[in-house]
Amino acid sequence: MTRINQTHDASLTSWVESANGHSDFPIQNLPFASFRRKGQSEFRGGVAIGDAIVDLAALAQLSIAEAPVQQALEQAAKPQLNDFMAMGFSAWSGLRLALSQWLREGAAQQAQLATCLVSQADVEYQMPAQVGDYTDFYTSIHHATAVGKLFRPDNPLLPNYKWVPIGYHGRASSLDVSGQEFHRPCGQTKAPDAAEPSFGPCKRLDYELEMGIFVGKGNDLGSPIALDDSDEHLFGMCLFNDWSARDIQAWEYQPLGPFLSKSFASTISPWIVTMEALAPYRVAYQRPESDPTPLPYLCSADNDEFGSMDIELECFLQTDAMRETEQAPQRLSRSNFRHSYWTMAQMLAHHSVNGCNMRPGDLLGSGTQSGPEREEAGSLLELSQGGKVPLTLANGEQRTFLADGDTVIFKGHCQRAGYARIGFGEVVSTVLPAKS
Amino acid sequence: MTRINQTHDASLTSWVESANGHSDFPIQNLPFASFRRKGQSEFRGGVAIGDAIVDLAALAQLSIAEAPVQQALEQAAKPQLNDFMAMGFSAWSGLRLALSQWLREGAAQQAQLATCLVSQADVEYQMPAQVGDYTDFYTSIHHATAVGKLFRPDNPLLPNYKWVPIGYHGRASSLDVSGQEFHRPCGQTKAPDAAEPSFGPCKRLDYELEMGIFVGKGNDLGSPIALDDSDEHLFGMCLFNDWSARDIQAWEYQPLGPFLSKSFASTISPWIVTMEALAPYRVAYQRPESDPTPLPYLCSADNDEFGSMDIELECFLQTDAMRETEQAPQRLSRSNFRHSYWTMAQMLAHHSVNGCNMRPGDLLGSGTQSGPEREEAGSLLELSQGGKVPLTLANGEQRTFLADGDTVIFKGHCQRAGYARIGFGEVVSTVLPAKS
Repeated sequence: MTRINQTHDASLTSWVESANGHSDFPIQNLPFASFRRKGQSEFRGGVAIGDAIVDLAALAQLSIAEAPVQQALEQAAKPQLNDFMAMGFSAWSGLRLALSQWLREGAAQQAQLATCLVSQADVEYQMPAQVGDYTDFYTSIHHATAVGKLFRPDNPLLPNYKWVPIGYHGRASSLDVSGQEFHRPCGQTKAPDAAEPSFGPCKRLDYELEMGIFVGKGNDLGSPIALDDSDEHLFGMCLFNDWSARDIQAWEYQPLGPFLSKSFASTISPWIVTMEALAPYRVAYQRPESDPTPLPYLCSADNDEFGSMDIELECFLQTDAMRETEQAPQRLSRSNFRHSYWTMAQMLAHHSVNGCNMRPGDLLGSGTQSGPEREEAGSLLELSQGGKVPLTLANGEQRTFLADGDTVIFKGHCQRAGYARIGFGEVVSTVLPAKS
Repeated sequence: MTRINQTHDASLTSWVESANGHSDFPIQNLPFASFRRKGQSEFRGGVAIGDAIVDLAALAQLSIAEAPVQQALEQAAKPQLNDFMAMGFSAWSGLRLALSQWLREGAAQQAQLATCLVSQADVEYQMPAQVGDYTDFYTSIHHATAVGKLFRPDNPLLPNYKWVPIGYHGRASSLDVSGQEFHRPCGQTKAPDAAEPSFGPCKRLDYELEMGIFVGKGNDLGSPIALDDSDEHLFGMCLFNDWSARDIQAWEYQPLGPFLSKSFASTISPWIVTMEALAPYRVAYQRPESDPTPLPYLCSADNDEFGSMDIELECFLQTDAMRETEQAPQRLSRSNFRHSYWTMAQMLAHHSVNGCNMRPGDLLGSGTQSGPEREEAGSLLELSQGGKVPLTLANGEQRTFLADGDTVIFKGHCQRAGYARIGFGEVVSTVLPAKS
């Protein structure tokens, strides 16, 4: 696992002053995105620092880096990050170190770097990578149990759950970055007491509070990735809202799994926080002692010691009525990615153990990250107990599932004594009415 | 639906003599692939005629076509066909007509075209398109019933089957063309009487006899494709072997569907037969009168009249022992795509009805095309009745599932009185031993 180095030093500050206060993007973070200035046509790679972005295409043209860093910079400057992701850990880490040094208080390169800064307020984002395949996991045992209870009260957790990091293939085409607005999907649903299904707008539209994980280096078909080799193969993480149409899902999902209930939209935050930036927030991977030990390909000392990640997650809702009265979004729940029953290294090792090839830029969803307490649930399905107990919002509105005009916002950050607080920014997306 | 035109005339012959005998690729076919001469680096688009290929990159350089056809030709000449697929029906049809005219007996362009011919024996193929997303359907009610019986003898077909064209997202990265060899996948399995799962090579490796369908023009996110608009959005078809690890599948698939049991390999035939070439073999879409009428978005007069396709399918097996004694591959089963319970237009309309965007080059699998008779089954799972009744081959070998060294070959063709016989070529793939 990636270890701590000088780029994580909590005492570092930047000459970009906005990075030194309460920003999600202090000099210890340095996440990547694909952006363009509003009104311009060309996307390029960028790195966040405070309220600004380092335009990597502009930076690459300055040719101030040593050869290996310059090579990494040129790949990271492209419109999407796939080629940079393919380079592997030493390239990512070399560029991170250089950026950390150039952006530090007192850096000799300040004047040059300053010419490459763009305000985040002036840009728009696109998908940071071309996602060849998107896979969604189901790693929160609390979510799996809560959802299972709705279908099987006496036997909520299926027998494979504690052995298999359950996952399924998702739809890549409908992925987009924060700011995505989408029409409420239409589809077939069938009420339990109805004789036949009917067609119409989804009535049980939900969010899912997830983390997204971008693959770095790929593997050849037939060559699995070992559990302890994930440093080369996992590039970084983002926030991820995996929208779900619960009523469509209930009718369609037997026997081959969710399909149209998921493929209408999925939204990620624009910034990818690298696994290296996240190194200080790794924590031990713990399962209850009474649970079975995973099979050997899913076990290692490194995974036990550092496999989990302490990421605080928050979910907010802003309704039309709240917008009209200028109320701030209301927090619906908090959770933490450390509750994940399977680690990212386990997801990757499992995914490839049959020989399946991963490609740079592939996206893994963690599955809904619900915590052990009911108020830590990562979906309305759980918060409303399957739609039976409406939530009453501060302004008196009620919700079981999402209404048209609802905006859902996820935030996330990492914090640990002796280290900087780093954040993920946010993922914001709004439900439009169904098309008639 | 596409109608018959002069390119389908059964009396047409080509000056490429090998096209006029028993070839899968007479002048009425004109399928597309991506190929390169063995030992050369550059792939390009090609069209099959008899034993030869028209090198579209070479042809484009001759500049013999009128402007709209030349534009289509230049897109089709690229290393993969996505941009050509994006052009839509009039571009595809215009190029088809020009090729038909140039390749006909007596064509004035014979000498020029002859300089663009390459022998199929001298080439290798790659995926004809970059597949952004691959979706697998489950459209054979005979397969769904047979497989369902193994799990639920009293209630084989789930209640949604006759209403919903069931499908799920597949893995795009492990798709390859005919010639693919892959190692038997390893994974978790659990015997019914075992207390715990174990890890090892798949013991119930199977093929699935499917058709692959390539998407042409895409649609915007949020804008469904209507049932009768499929001409613009469906480009063509190929043979498709969707390899399956039945024991891995049985343990992993609840509740989110097949995952590692499918993602280790999927193999298509290199040639895409266009929907226009297939127009003469369209047949009426018929379901038993006692079955429910599909919901309105899945019903139209055109779909009823022309929605199904009469494609004869065959599956062959060649074992190591058969190869050693120079025995020809043995046919295991025959089936026909007309048995599909859902049409291709219905698959596409359903897939996009929630707003999901399709992109040019996306691949739809039809699902295993088993016919109504037991010997028309499209998988060993069905032929061996869930592994309980081994097949005895002509040389005395037995099979319940596939053995290492087994080569599986699918062939397919269309035939109808008054029209030419056109074929799909074949998809051939071999199982290598598991990696130790």
